[in-house]
Amino acid sequence: MEAAMEYVTTLPAETLHAFTRSVFERAGFSAQHAADGADVLLWASRRGVDTHGVRNLKLIYLRMLEAGQLNTKANFVVEHETPVSVRANGDGGLGLASASWAMRLAMDKAEQSGMAFVTVRNTNHYGAAGFYPAMALGRDMIGISMAGRFNGQGTEIGVMPTFGSVPMFSTNPIAIAFPTQDEAPWVLDMATSIAPYNRVVLHRENGLPVPPQWGLTDDGEPTPDAQLMHKMWPLGGDRAHGGHKGYGLSMMVATMCGVLSGGWDEGHDGSEAAFDGYQQDGDSHFFGAIHIDAFRSVDGFKRGMDAMIRALHAGPKEAGQDRIYVAGEIEHETEQERLRDGIPLTAVTVTDLREVAHAYGVALDI
Amino acid sequence: MEAAMEYVTTLPAETLHAFTRSVFERAGFSAQHAADGADVLLWASRRGVDTHGVRNLKLIYLRMLEAGQLNTKANFVVEHETPVSVRANGDGGLGLASASWAMRLAMDKAEQSGMAFVTVRNTNHYGAAGFYPAMALGRDMIGISMAGRFNGQGTEIGVMPTFGSVPMFSTNPIAIAFPTQDEAPWVLDMATSIAPYNRVVLHRENGLPVPPQWGLTDDGEPTPDAQLMHKMWPLGGDRAHGGHKGYGLSMMVATMCGVLSGGWDEGHDGSEAAFDGYQQDGDSHFFGAIHIDAFRSVDGFKRGMDAMIRALHAGPKEAGQDRIYVAGEIEHETEQERLRDGIPLTAVTVTDLREVAHAYGVALDI
Repeated sequence: MEAAMEYVTTLPAETLHAFTRSVFERAGFSAQHAADGADVLLWASRRGVDTHGVRNLKLIYLRMLEAGQLNTKANFVVEHETPVSVRANGDGGLGLASASWAMRLAMDKAEQSGMAFVTVRNTNHYGAAGFYPAMALGRDMIGISMAGRFNGQGTEIGVMPTFGSVPMFSTNPIAIAFPTQDEAPWVLDMATSIAPYNRVVLHRENGLPVPPQWGLTDDGEPTPDAQLMHKMWPLGGDRAHGGHKGYGLSMMVATMCGVLSGGWDEGHDGSEAAFDGYQQDGDSHFFGAIHIDAFRSVDGFKRGMDAMIRALHAGPKEAGQDRIYVAGEIEHETEQERLRDGIPLTAVTVTDLREVAHAYGVALDI
Repeated sequence: MEAAMEYVTTLPAETLHAFTRSVFERAGFSAQHAADGADVLLWASRRGVDTHGVRNLKLIYLRMLEAGQLNTKANFVVEHETPVSVRANGDGGLGLASASWAMRLAMDKAEQSGMAFVTVRNTNHYGAAGFYPAMALGRDMIGISMAGRFNGQGTEIGVMPTFGSVPMFSTNPIAIAFPTQDEAPWVLDMATSIAPYNRVVLHRENGLPVPPQWGLTDDGEPTPDAQLMHKMWPLGGDRAHGGHKGYGLSMMVATMCGVLSGGWDEGHDGSEAAFDGYQQDGDSHFFGAIHIDAFRSVDGFKRGMDAMIRALHAGPKEAGQDRIYVAGEIEHETEQERLRDGIPLTAVTVTDLREVAHAYGVALDI
C-alpha cells in the first residue's frame, strides 16, 4: 500500500485561496486568470488531491513562469466553432485559466445546444482534471475533461506504450462528473496510467517509497525508489494484465486533445513540410458538457445515480474492507473535513509557500 | 500468456454471412434486423475477435430466442430527441439490430449537427462493441459505443467493484474509432475488466486454462480453471494496481447507458414506487458520432493520426518484442488474412453451426 504523508501544519482553505490568487496576480496574470488558477488548486487541496493542490503553485506554475514557459498575457482564441464545438488556442498561457475558460464555453454552448465539446491546443498544465467536469454539476450537466500529450520521439518520464521500452505519453488523465441528488457527486478523475507521475514526485519529496507496481527504472526494472521510477505503466500494467487497454485509453486522450485540436501538429493543415516534423507543442486539452435534459429529466437521472450508489454501498465487501466507495466519495468527505479543520501541509510545501510569499511579496502567516 | 485456440476448418466470410443472415430470417427477424445481425457477427469473425463472432449465433442469440428472451418483431422507438440526442427503447429486440439502427441515427444527426449521442434502453447483447464506432469511419466521424449493465443485487458472473466481493457490473465495454489516412483505422474495443467473461467461456469450451490474473473463483481465490473463474477483476485488478479506475470506468459506462437511457430504472421518472425497485431490465447501450469537421479539416486530422501511429511504430521496443501495435491494428491484419483464407472455426463452433443449420433448415456445407 501507499505510504501516508506527514503533515506539519494546517491553513484555512480561504487563506490559501487568497494567497494563491494574489501570487498569480503579482506574477503578472489577469484577475480572471489568477482567480481561476486559485480555484483549481484549492479545489484539489480541499479534496485531499495533494498531488494537484497548492503544492504545485511553486513546483509547476511559478517554475514554468520563471523559466519563461508561461505567457502571463495570454489571449485565448476561438479558431473554429459551431453550435456544438470549439477548437481553441490557449496562447501558451496558464492552463488552469484556459481550461476554466474552455469549460465555461462548453457549458454555455451546451445550455443552448444540449451538448458541446471544446478542444484546446497550445496550452499548459491544467491541474486536477476533475475540477472542470465538476463545474458542470451545478448546471445539471455531465462534465468531461481530458489532458493529452504524446511525445513522438519518446521522453524521459512518462507512460510507455504496450511492448515499448520508452515513455511516449504523459499520464493523460480522463475526468467525468455526474450530478446526483442526495449522494456525493460522482467525480471520476483518473490518470490512464496506474499512478500519475506527480504522485511519484510527491513520495520522493517526502522521502517515501512508492509501490513498485506503478512503474520501472530507466533500465526497465521494477523499483520502490521514488528517485528511480521514471517509466510508468499504463493502467493495467503489462500485456497479461490488460495494460494495452490503459495504453489505448492514453492514445484516445492524446487524440481527442492533441490531434483534434491540431496541438500534435501545431495545426499545420495542408503543409506537407509539417508532416515529417510532427510534434506536440505545449499541452492539449478536451472538455465536454452534456445537458441531461437532452436525454431525460434531470430529476430522474439524479435519482438513478443515487440508487446505483446506494446499491454499491450495500454490496457485500471483500474481507478486511468495511466500505465500497464510488468515484469522488473519499474526496467529498475529505473536503468536508478540510473545510472544517483546514488544509494540512507537508514540510516541503510549507518551505515552498514561504519562499513564494517572500519572492512575490504576498504575506502568508505560516 | 493466453493459450491458442485449435481450429478444425475454415469457411469463407461471405458463406458464413449469408448463413447467419438466413438463420436470423428463419428465426423470425426482419430482413433488416437479420442483415444487421450478420454484419456485426461477421465483422468480429473476420477480425479474429472470435469471442464475439459467429460462435455466438447459437450460444447467445438463438439460445435467448429459444428461451423467449428476444422479441423478433421489435419496433425500435425514439422516446425523446433533440438535434444532438436521442433516448430510445429497443423493445426487447435483437441488440445487434437496435445498436446498428441507433448508430445510424447518431451518424445521421451528426451529419446535420456536428455530433450526436444516442442512448438505448430495453435491448440486448450487441456483440463486438467496436463494430458501431467503425461504422462511422467512412463518414469521417469519430465513433463511440458502450454497453453497460449494473446489477444492484449482485450477480453470479461479472465484474466486482473495488473492495466488493460480489460481481455487480457486466464487463461494460467502451469502443472508440478514429479515421486514419493510410494506416489501419484506429479502433479501440475494450471491456472495462481485465478480460471479458466470454473469453473465459471460449477457453472453457476449448478445454484451455485461463490466465489467473483475470479473476477469481466464487470463493474469491485466483484460478487458472476456466470452469471456476466467475468473479472478474475490473481493469487494473486490485486497488494497489489501479483497479478502482477500471471500476470507475465500468460505472461510467453503466451510467451513460443505463441511467441516461432510463434502463436502470426503466424510465419511471417521477414514480416514487420505482425508486426502491431499481433494477436493470435487459441491456442498455450508448452511441456517439462526432464529425471531425466540427473541429478541424478531416484531412489534417487523418494525417495527424497517421503521424502518431508511425511514431509509435518507430518507438524503441521492450526486450523480446519486435512491434508496437496500435488499437485495431492486429485485427485489421487478421481481417486481411481471413478475407483471403477464410474464417477458422473450432470444433465446438463447427458442431454448433451444424446444429443450427439443421434446426433452422438453412444449408451449410461444413
